[in-house]
Amino acid sequence: MKRRYAILANGHFADDAKTAHGVIAYGTDETVVVIDPASAGKRVREAVPYLQSDAPIVANVAQALQYGPTALLIGTAPIGGGLPAEWRAEILAAIDAKLEVVSGLHDQLGADREFKLAAQRAGTKIWDVREPPDVPIFSGAVYNVSVPTLLLVGNDCAVGKMTVALELCRAAQRAGKKAAFVPTGQTGIMIAGWGISVDRVIADFAPGAAESLVLYAANSQPDLIVVEGQGAINHPAYAPVTLALMYGSAPDALVLVVDPTREKLGGYATPALPYDKLIRLHEELLATVKPARVVGIALNTRYLDGPAAQAQIERARRETGLPADDVVRYGPDALYAAIVSNVQRHAPCSV
Amino acid sequence: MKRRYAILANGHFADDAKTAHGVIAYGTDETVVVIDPASAGKRVREAVPYLQSDAPIVANVAQALQYGPTALLIGTAPIGGGLPAEWRAEILAAIDAKLEVVSGLHDQLGADREFKLAAQRAGTKIWDVREPPDVPIFSGAVYNVSVPTLLLVGNDCAVGKMTVALELCRAAQRAGKKAAFVPTGQTGIMIAGWGISVDRVIADFAPGAAESLVLYAANSQPDLIVVEGQGAINHPAYAPVTLALMYGSAPDALVLVVDPTREKLGGYATPALPYDKLIRLHEELLATVKPARVVGIALNTRYLDGPAAQAQIERARRETGLPADDVVRYGPDALYAAIVSNVQRHAPCSV
Repeated sequence: MKRRYAILANGHFADDAKTAHGVIAYGTDETVVVIDPASAGKRVREAVPYLQSDAPIVANVAQALQYGPTALLIGTAPIGGGLPAEWRAEILAAIDAKLEVVSGLHDQLGADREFKLAAQRAGTKIWDVREPPDVPIFSGAVYNVSVPTLLLVGNDCAVGKMTVALELCRAAQRAGKKAAFVPTGQTGIMIAGWGISVDRVIADFAPGAAESLVLYAANSQPDLIVVEGQGAINHPAYAPVTLALMYGSAPDALVLVVDPTREKLGGYATPALPYDKLIRLHEELLATVKPARVVGIALNTRYLDGPAAQAQIERARRETGLPADDVVRYGPDALYAAIVSNVQRHAPCSV
Repeated sequence: MKRRYAILANGHFADDAKTAHGVIAYGTDETVVVIDPASAGKRVREAVPYLQSDAPIVANVAQALQYGPTALLIGTAPIGGGLPAEWRAEILAAIDAKLEVVSGLHDQLGADREFKLAAQRAGTKIWDVREPPDVPIFSGAVYNVSVPTLLLVGNDCAVGKMTVALELCRAAQRAGKKAAFVPTGQTGIMIAGWGISVDRVIADFAPGAAESLVLYAANSQPDLIVVEGQGAINHPAYAPVTLALMYGSAPDALVLVVDPTREKLGGYATPALPYDKLIRLHEELLATVKPARVVGIALNTRYLDGPAAQAQIERARRETGLPADDVVRYGPDALYAAIVSNVQRHAPCSV
């Protein structure tokens, strides 16, 4: 049965709630109401113009209940994933109203004694989507998958790697191909209903987690596997997860997702890299294990006007010689058509 | 109080027990007996000529007890870190004899119901050294450390990165400098009595773990910090841990540890890399966050005779233009003297 989500995004919905936005835009479950005092009284599409949803925004869980939600989704992921203390009362109110709680936070809500007991009392449940299953060490079994595999990488966190992956899957389907989206983070898991938060896996096992996701996706015999990326290869905190996806998913090609306005990596003084360095770093690393080329650039031009966006797309094409586009602004079909022939299964390095 | 170790290394002591060898060679706790039916009846130095220890090797825990051990150390780490089933009876025998159990395995022995109950009954304890503490996300606080920091990297796992780190610390001390060894894996932790198994940390937090270790080491105001490396940058399973140490410990210089006989990475078909590619990959990655150069090559020539070892050392010098030596075979003083002036604290990249 499909869920009816109330999304909790206190104070962040309009500007910094990528989980909420992703579930509203791409989820198979419906979002019926958003909770954020900062935007209360508006509709979703008024607070976030690129979201095509008329769901109302209200100030708290009590007001949200009139829209008949069946689940409360924790719709933002603060740095480190901790639970802001002021959200506790709202979550308890939702549990008391028998809503399921779906959380992508690092802190396991289901392991919190107060939440656990409240859920037992109310007869509802808590789904911590970040909590990973046990996975084996990377084995190389992924090299035997015969489905061409595309991995998204980017110039920072939160630049749209998941969105581009989902849009490219839509384009593939419109072109008559079966594409399997591989979720590697909490929002992707909430959208697709399966997956592993690879950033939450013990470091030694992270490439094995990526491998197991691709093996699972290959079971349905799609024409193309599209792996959601995480972090950035020069991110001081999250690059190990990026590298785990690069080696573990064993892609045949990469699409580089870039916010061209990003000067430094979110929360750090580390500079964002130019196209040539980004492409070279990814390709040189993969060349040591299983070669894969960057075959296209997906720009996130959300913060630019039309002419500035076009100028950035032109610059990307000129500087890289690769197909480049903004798949949200202009649709994914052109970029998909331009890259698909360059995603061909090939073999790993071996002695 | 110092421990008296019985080291359990069933079937592996002579050829594949780097934890056991490291603790015997460098540990502050004494090893009084080794348990391995495959080498029983020999002394340690007879089974492993490069270890200067007369401790006896016996077939089982029952025989080991006569040497008065106070702790059983699990002295080998199979791939993935799981506990071989046949060791269970031996570990229970040690617990029943009131020995402390010190384990570097992935599986937490202290979480095993049978072991836990046995330890409670016997009034002894189980120390799972791999179990990491909670650590924060990488913050950049490590950039404010003023102590020059050296990180070991290598062309594979198990090539001697920890040994080289320990030998360089010894050389520094002989040269009148205070060097702090930073343990990042189970053997290093057992040797030094503190540290974090960075491979056991949740991937998102692995750079933060490395950062916290360097911050801790800096507290004692040493002249030099030497960080034990892990994995290899082109290792399909363990490279994310390597990268976490590179970004998280924010080194000022690297020493590259190479087994020149290694043609492919242990357990995988992935080719070992030549010097130029290894050096370039590490330096290009670090150049994006905080630049650091490879300042020396430490060769592991254990499997070569004297002339072949010398030839490999000469080749390393010729191909890289860097100081190169085998610090186990020829001592660490020359390599230390050749590199120390190139380990100077410097600033990260920033916008």
